[in-house]
Order: sequence, then C-alpha cells, then structure tokens
Amino acid sequence: MGRQKVYLDKLSRFFQIRNLLLRQALAECLGTLILVMFGCGAVAQLVLSGGSHGMFLTVNFAFGFAATLGILVCGQVSGGHLNPAVTFALCLLGREPWKKFPMYFLFQTIGAFFGSAIIFAMYYDALWDHPGNFHVSGPNATAGIFATYPGKHLTIVNGFFDQIIGTAALIVCILAIVDPHNNSIPQGLEAFTVGFVVLVIGLSMGFNSGYAVNPARDLGPRIFTAMAGWGTEVFTARNGWFLVPIFAPFLGTIIGVMIYQLMVGCHVEGEARDKKNPEQTENVRLTNTDSNNAKEVNC
Amino acid sequence: MGRQKVYLDKLSRFFQIRNLLLRQALAECLGTLILVMFGCGAVAQLVLSGGSHGMFLTVNFAFGFAATLGILVCGQVSGGHLNPAVTFALCLLGREPWKKFPMYFLFQTIGAFFGSAIIFAMYYDALWDHPGNFHVSGPNATAGIFATYPGKHLTIVNGFFDQIIGTAALIVCILAIVDPHNNSIPQGLEAFTVGFVVLVIGLSMGFNSGYAVNPARDLGPRIFTAMAGWGTEVFTARNGWFLVPIFAPFLGTIIGVMIYQLMVGCHVEGEARDKKNPEQTENVRLTNTDSNNAKEVNC
Amino acid sequence: MGRQKVYLDKLSRFFQIRNLLLRQALAECLGTLILVMFGCGAVAQLVLSGGSHGMFLTVNFAFGFAATLGILVCGQVSGGHLNPAVTFALCLLGREPWKKFPMYFLFQTIGAFFGSAIIFAMYYDALWDHPGNFHVSGPNATAGIFATYPGKHLTIVNGFFDQIIGTAALIVCILAIVDPHNNSIPQGLEAFTVGFVVLVIGLSMGFNSGYAVNPARDLGPRIFTAMAGWGTEVFTARNGWFLVPIFAPFLGTIIGVMIYQLMVGCHVEGEARDKKNPEQTENVRLTNTDSNNAKEVNC
Amino acid sequence: MGRQKVYLDKLSRFFQIRNLLLRQALAECLGTLILVMFGCGAVAQLVLSGGSHGMFLTVNFAFGFAATLGILVCGQVSGGHLNPAVTFALCLLGREPWKKFPMYFLFQTIGAFFGSAIIFAMYYDALWDHPGNFHVSGPNATAGIFATYPGKHLTIVNGFFDQIIGTAALIVCILAIVDPHNNSIPQGLEAFTVGFVVLVIGLSMGFNSGYAVNPARDLGPRIFTAMAGWGTEVFTARNGWFLVPIFAPFLGTIIGVMIYQLMVGCHVEGEARDKKNPEQTENVRLTNTDSNNAKEVNC
Repeated sequence: MGRQKVYLDKLSRFFQIRNLLLRQALAECLGTLILVMFGCGAVAQLVLSGGSHGMFLTVNFAFGFAATLGILVCGQVSGGHLNPAVTFALCLLGREPWKKFPMYFLFQTIGAFFGSAIIFAMYYDALWDHPGNFHVSGPNATAGIFATYPGKHLTIVNGFFDQIIGTAALIVCILAIVDPHNNSIPQGLEAFTVGFVVLVIGLSMGFNSGYAVNPARDLGPRIFTAMAGWGTEVFTARNGWFLVPIFAPFLGTIIGVMIYQLMVGCHVEGEARDKKNPEQTENVRLTNTDSNNAKEVNC
Repeated sequence: MGRQKVYLDKLSRFFQIRNLLLRQALAECLGTLILVMFGCGAVAQLVLSGGSHGMFLTVNFAFGFAATLGILVCGQVSGGHLNPAVTFALCLLGREPWKKFPMYFLFQTIGAFFGSAIIFAMYYDALWDHPGNFHVSGPNATAGIFATYPGKHLTIVNGFFDQIIGTAALIVCILAIVDPHNNSIPQGLEAFTVGFVVLVIGLSMGFNSGYAVNPARDLGPRIFTAMAGWGTEVFTARNGWFLVPIFAPFLGTIIGVMIYQLMVGCHVEGEARDKKNPEQTENVRLTNTDSNNAKEVNC
Repeated sequence: MGRQKVYLDKLSRFFQIRNLLLRQALAECLGTLILVMFGCGAVAQLVLSGGSHGMFLTVNFAFGFAATLGILVCGQVSGGHLNPAVTFALCLLGREPWKKFPMYFLFQTIGAFFGSAIIFAMYYDALWDHPGNFHVSGPNATAGIFATYPGKHLTIVNGFFDQIIGTAALIVCILAIVDPHNNSIPQGLEAFTVGFVVLVIGLSMGFNSGYAVNPARDLGPRIFTAMAGWGTEVFTARNGWFLVPIFAPFLGTIIGVMIYQLMVGCHVEGEARDKKNPEQTENVRLTNTDSNNAKEVNC
Repeated sequence: MGRQKVYLDKLSRFFQIRNLLLRQALAECLGTLILVMFGCGAVAQLVLSGGSHGMFLTVNFAFGFAATLGILVCGQVSGGHLNPAVTFALCLLGREPWKKFPMYFLFQTIGAFFGSAIIFAMYYDALWDHPGNFHVSGPNATAGIFATYPGKHLTIVNGFFDQIIGTAALIVCILAIVDPHNNSIPQGLEAFTVGFVVLVIGLSMGFNSGYAVNPARDLGPRIFTAMAGWGTEVFTARNGWFLVPIFAPFLGTIIGVMIYQLMVGCHVEGEARDKKNPEQTENVRLTNTDSNNAKEVNC
C-alpha cells in the first residue's frame, strides 16, 4: 500500500491546478454538471417512461436534491453557485469580485452542456424508442427534457414575469440562508436548505414554463439539443423564448436583492454593526462622514 | 470594488430602520409572504394544471417547506411566527409582550395579501385559460387557490372543531420544539422541524377544509381575491365560513397551550427550576409567598 | 406583563407533578397521542377522500414524521418510546427498569386511544358522508382507518411473521441509532432518524397488514372503534387478528435485539470496554470472576 | 436489575468477536441486508399490490433511506460501504487496504442474499396470490422485485453505459461527501447525504434498468431467486444481463474517481497540503524527490 500511496501522491501533484480562479471554475462546472445531469435525468425518466417511472413531483425532488449534491461537490472550492444569477447577486452585493462572473457563467454553461449530454447518452435507446424523438414541439416533444419551453397558455410577457418572480424568490431565500447576521443554519446544512428552496420553487412555480430560474441550466442544454439533432428550432420556438430564461433571471436577481436588503438584510447588518462599535456608530449617525465610511470598508 | 462597497454601505445605512418593532413586523411580513407565495403557488399549480403538475401531496410539501423558508428568512429578526396563532401562544405564555400581537397580526396579513398577489400575477395567463376563472364555488372554482373553503361534507360546527384541533396540534408541537427545557433540537433546525409539523398537519388534517390553522394566511389572500375579481362571495360563501379560520385558531391555541403545559411543559420547567435552586424551591413548596414569586420573576 | 408571569408561575407550580414515573407516563401518553393522531389522520384523509387527498405514500410520510414529532414532544422526559416494543427492548437490554414497562404500555395505549378519538371527532361529518361508515369489512370498510386489518391474501401465520420482521427491523435500526458506541448521529437528530425508520418500514413492509409494529398503536384505536360504533367485530374479524399486532411485536423485539447485539452491538460495546480499561479486561478474559463482573456493574 | 446486567455482560463477552476484519465484514453484511430488505421490500410492495401501495417514487425513497439506515447501523464499525463499488473506490484511493475488498464483497453479497430472503418470506402469501408468481419475464414478472432486469428498449451496450454513468455519479458524490478537505457536512450526517444521493440516482437514472449500481445488491438477490423457484432463467435472461451490474459498476467507479480527483479532489487536497507545510511543499515542487514523498506517507 505504501507504493500505491506514493504513486497516487505523485499523480495528485501532477494534476493539481494552482490557479485559484480556474480551479473554482472547474469545480463550478462539475457542480452544475451534477445539477443538470440529475435534474434533466428526472425529466427524461418522466417523459420517456410515459409517466410510469416519474411524475412532476419526482422532477422537483430531483432538481432540489441535485442542487444540494452539486453544492456539496463544489461548495468548498467555488462557493457552489451553480447558477449565474446567484453569482450575479453576490457580485452585486460586493461579496464576490465581478471578474468571477463571466468565468463562472461560462463554466456553469459548459457543465450544464455536458450534464445534458450524459443524460442524452444514457437514455439514447429510450429516446429512439419514443414516438416523439427529436421533436421540439407537439404532443410527444422531447426537447423539453433538456431546456425549458413555455406552456401553451403562457404569453411572453407573463413568462418573463414568471422567470423574474421565480429568480427573485430563489435569491431572497439564498441571501437569507447565507447571511451570517440572519438565522444561523448549522454549518454544512446550507446546501440542503438551498435544495429545499429549489424543491419548493418547483412545487409552486413550475407550471408556467418549468422554472429554469438559471441561465446556465437552460442555455447549456439548449445548445446541446441544437447540436444533437433537434436543430435550430430549439432557439426559434415560441418567438425566441430561449432569451427569456437567459435575461429575466438577472432582472429577478436585482429585485430579489433589493427586497431582501430592504426588508431584512440592511437592518440585521446594521444591528450587527451597531453592536460591534456602538460609540462609532453614534458618530456615524451624527456626522456620517465619508472618511468614516471608507475606514469601515478597510476593516 | 472598494467604491462599490462604500456605495452599498451608504445605501444600507440610508434604508436601515432603527425601530425594533417595525423591523420585526417587516420581517414577519416578508416571512408570511414567502409562506403564502409558495403555499398558494402550489395550490395554483395543482388546480390550474388540472393535476398534471401537482397533487395534494405537493401542496403539503410546499406549505411545509415554505414555512421552513419563511422562518429562515425572518426568524433571527422577528422570531419567525408567520402566524398570529403562534404569536398569540407566545404572548399567552408571557414570552412575547402583548403589544406585539396586533402589529404582527397586521403585517402577517399584509404579507399573506402580497404573497397571493404575486401568485395571481404569476399565473395570470393560466387563470384566464382555466374554465373556472374567478369562480368561488362550483366544480371549477379557483377561489380555493388563495383562501380555504370547507368541503361539501363539512358542517360549520365540525369545521370549527377541525380548525381548533389543527391549531392545537400545531401549537403543541411548536411549543415542544421551542421549549429550551425539552428535547434540544440542534440550534438552527427549529425551522425545519416546524416545516415538518406543517407538512404532517397537511397530510392528516387537510381533507375537511384545507388546514388554514392561521388567521393571517387565510384572511390576507381572501381580501385579495375579493379585490382581484372574485367579489364579495368569498366572504359570504358557506354562511360566512371565512370567520372560522380567523377565530377558531385562537381557541385552538389556548387548548394547545394548556395541553402541552399540563402534560409536559410545567413538569420540565419545574424540574429545571428545582435543579437550579434546590433550597429555594423547598422554601417555595413550604411557604409559597408572593414575595418569593415576585423575586423569581425579577431574576 | 409582570403580573401575568407571576400568575403563570403559580399555575405552573400548582400543576407540576413531582412523581417522575407518572410524569414520564404522561409524556409518553402525549407522544403516542400525537403519533396516532397524525398517522391515523392520514389514513382517514386517504380513505374518506377516496384518494383525492392522499395515497399510501402520504400515510407513510405521516406515520414517519408523526413518530418524529411524538418523540420530540416527550423525548426529554420519557425517552420517547411511543411503542411498548421499544420499551420492551430497552428493558431487555437493562437500559430501563422493568417496572416502567407496564406503566408505559398502559399510557401509550391510552394516548393511542385518545389520538384516534380526536381523528374520529375531526372527520365525524366526513365519516357519516362515506358509504362505508362503521363497516369493519367490505370494500368501503372504515375500521382500517384506526386499527390494522390483514390484506385478503394474508394467512395468520404469514401475518404473524410479517409483524415479527417489521418489529425486528424497527428495533435493529433504533438500537443502532441510540447506541452511544455506534455511529454518532448529532444529538437531537435521533427523533428524525427514527422517523425515517418508520417511513421506510411503511414504504416496504406496509402491504400485508399496514405495519402496526406497535401493540399500543393498534390496541388503543381498536378499543376506541369498538366503543365508537364499529362494535365487537373489530376483535373477531379475521379469526382474532387483533392478537397478532399485540404479541408478534414482542417476539420481533427479542429477535431484533439478538440480531443487532450479535452482529454489531456486542463488538462495539466490547471494543469501548477494552479501550477504557485495557488491563482490567485482560484480567477478565483470564479469570472472569463474578466479583469482577459485579464491580463493573457497580461502576 | 443487577443480576440481569451481570448476565447480559457475560453474554456480551461470550459473543464478542475480537477479529477486526471479521467484525467489520459482519457489520457490512447487516448493513447491506438492511439496504436490500427495505429496498427490495418497496419493489415487492409496488409490484404485488399492483400499484395501490406504492409507485416508482416510493421505491426511490425506500432505497435512499435504506442506504442511510444501513450506513447508520454499520458505519462506525466498517465504514458503511454497503456496495463493493464503494469499497473498490476507497481501495483505489489508498484509503482502505486491498485485502478488505474480497471480504467486504463476499459479506455484502451474503447480506443482500438474506435481505431478499426476508422479503421473500414476508410477502410469501402475496407472491402466491400474484398472477406472475415466479415468472422471470412477461407482463407479470416478479423476478424484478429482487434483481434488476433491463427495460425492453435497452440494448446491452446502452445498459452497460447506464450502469457506468450511474456508478460514476454515485462515486463522485460519495467522494465529495467523505472528502475531509471538501465541504464539511456536520459529522453524523454523511449517512443521510449518501441516502439522498441514492434517492436522486433513482429519480433520474432508474428508467433503463432499475439503477443497481451495486454488484452485491444485484448478485445476492439474483442467486436467491435462482434458488427460491425462479430458476436459472434469472441468469440467462436478456443474453446474460446479470453480468452487466456486476462488472460495469467497477468501470464506473474508476471513471468516477478520476473525474472527482481531476476536477476537485486533487486541488483541495493539494491546497490543504500546501497550507500544512508551506516550506516543505516548495521543496517538493523544486526537487520532488522520492525520499520526500515516502516521508509524507509515513506521517
């Protein structure tokens, strides 16, 4: 066993990446791959089995717990965002540098791409066996396994609003979960709690268009389906619906950040600040000088 | 990034509310909004999809985990009651001042109002697409998405009893969960446990009238439906049923508090008191003077 | 608020029971009441709604999480057995005194009796509305809401074996959960884990006769149904089936204790003992005198 | 009670096994027995009840939580692998000695054998009552209760790939969960997290062939069915399908280990190493001598 360890150690040193951002992006890629693999896998199981091996509830469970597992896999390294909207929220609040945003977005999308590719390969036989193989629309469409498409009742405006609300709800809950000044969830359980958030969003906001609320989760698999045989119809369907789950979530993120900060975040943060240096805060309330603010930031 | 932080800090200070009760009421408002948004959203998904995207179990899950998330969002600030009956129970036991009760009740109702408004907006297209849009009664009624209505088999007396039992069960479990002398759940998991309580109540007490067990959760959305197009029938339906989920829960709270205190609470509390000051307690048992009691309270 | 506290304190002292065993039995009674109320409530919801508000899975969830909540309510006071078979197992292993067994059994049965009475009252209208009200057998029988009855395919011998296996599985898992030398679940999560055990037993061992695996949970509600209008047929049905869920669980407990102790328990216990006093154990292995054993017990 | 304790203590000493590997193998045997008993029990409940007491989701839940309970029962003693593929992965990474692998494989298979035997005995009456008793193929086949058989749409190649992906996903998640350098789940919750992994795999990868992803879980019950009356057809069915869930998982394990190590594992490990001894690591990067590596291993 001694020799095996030496060999493994050498291998480990050989492949170790020392660039932090690349390492984080890779982890984020694997996390999103897991999210999409399990999530879209559950949709595939539901659609391809014709309902015998799944229902909408199993899809909700799968996406929820897949988010948990994805975060557990990469959380320590990259923070476990799995979602450009979450990265965007943390950049907005100044908790992550903006340079991370494009890198994370790219690798999250790549992870989602490969996650759906794995499911495609896994259910290849089942897909060919299905009457609606490679249909983007119609009663037997299978494109919805990978990317989201709006229900028949949905207009683009309502769909845009749907994605905004869903993402805002996600962001409000995630901000509460990771806010150190708010309710302290035992360390290590954040991943489970975020999983529950995704589960609940699916249970209550999934009927309109399948709760993407994540630009990478939707775009990556959509590009994959375009390449794998469903063709460009995945982009043109429903008047360019594919743009909605890319742009609406960012707008929803801004609204979610504002709601949480105005209704809870600012106040608990302020309270914590007041407790830490009570005299100084008194001064701030009286003078509120720029120099004072700058000093706080340096701390 | 330095400049962004300074700017965010200024904003945060600008919007910080320093009145504790208002801050708590706002947090309670957001928590109840989340509870009702996710909960009623699940009912909407079930009703409007005609069962393809939900079932009664998904509604139970949604309300349960929505309660968890609502508590997580506001718990550190306001205690995370989300329910005037819970506030009432804590006031009864002297753990919260009575002045909080009307304030919390009001803001919880406001939160529930906006929670249902968000779901209304989100499923606006789906609602218009549904055959029973804006019907309060009948086979395709949609008013039940927002507020609760009794089943056909239910008399008012049984319905009143149903709400009393449901609330009493909720309160017994919540008191056990938050009782520091009883079973110590790891800190931070109270929210999850309360979520399970709400889930179980839905699984076993939801058939009669939809387990409101929460005056604010029922009244807020009901007022919203009256304004949004369902009309005053939401109040007059079934001989003024809407009064039952407002008043019965408070009666249930009193019964729940009594049951828990008599069967468990008094004894564990007493035991803890006996352990803390064994000699003094002996005196109390012998003399039990008012002065002694008063001293205890001062501690 | 000062006056309210004084008054509450007086009340609390007045009702405080100082007899430990009675206090424990009362707590056990409330815990079992909660288990049966939520569990049988879910069966009632399933049966009386004709499947629209429940399915077998919801019953499994309800019994599982009801066990969790029951344990949380009474665990600190009485240990949270909720089941005479669990009390029996702990007495067998010398962890609880035998005098507790009849007392716990009695109060657990009383709790189960009242738990089913509450559900009866809650669903009184729905029961009268149901075609099979107060039928013990037949396609619309409702006696199965409260107590368990075997499926048509089941013989008494297989049914006896079914209850033995179910209880043995329950006991093996519970012993592993509460064994301080085995896998250390974070304190306070035992209740949740036991809930999962009950859930899993329901998912996989519920088809034969409804997984009573608990003499009190079955006997209490059965006595209630006999009194509430279903008559003595609840005892005579299927050749005295009611005796099986009373006696088989205790036999299953013995088997479960033996399996766990032989395959895991003895060894981890022994290892812990060896670590604690390595020299003494050596002596024991060499001499193994009674005096030495007695000394161990005194420790 | 003193005498009972003395007696129990003697018994415990008599049966205590002092050989560590045998003790671990026995524990592993009991853990796998629990996994298969609850898991296959849920399939039996689904198949034999014709869907009234189960659905595919309940099977997923049962296997997931059964994995949790199996790990809780044996985790402290044997590590709670329950799966030769997991043992293989840990041997590959040098965290378990290779001599454990055949021993664990054997006892895991024995445990799975007896787990299915218990379910066979439990549902003996129900099995005889079922139209497809002892059929290996056909619409009423019951052999699928115990071992896995591929769906009609599945070719052997796709099936092999299916098992590889499923096991790789399992291994990636398990490695992340047990990696001390990665996301730190609170101690004692690993079992629950692994249960969620198994649940999610079932939700999204169960349609092709029933997600064995575990050679022991499939082989043990298959041998049992061959002996219990289904005959050698269990091995010959679908051109020797039974070999796939034995060999594919090990290939999947290798892929899973590689993916996790390359994308996350090596880097967090390396980072921890760099932090521990920064000067030494500098040396390693410069010289990377064998002597240095050997020293590391000795630590």
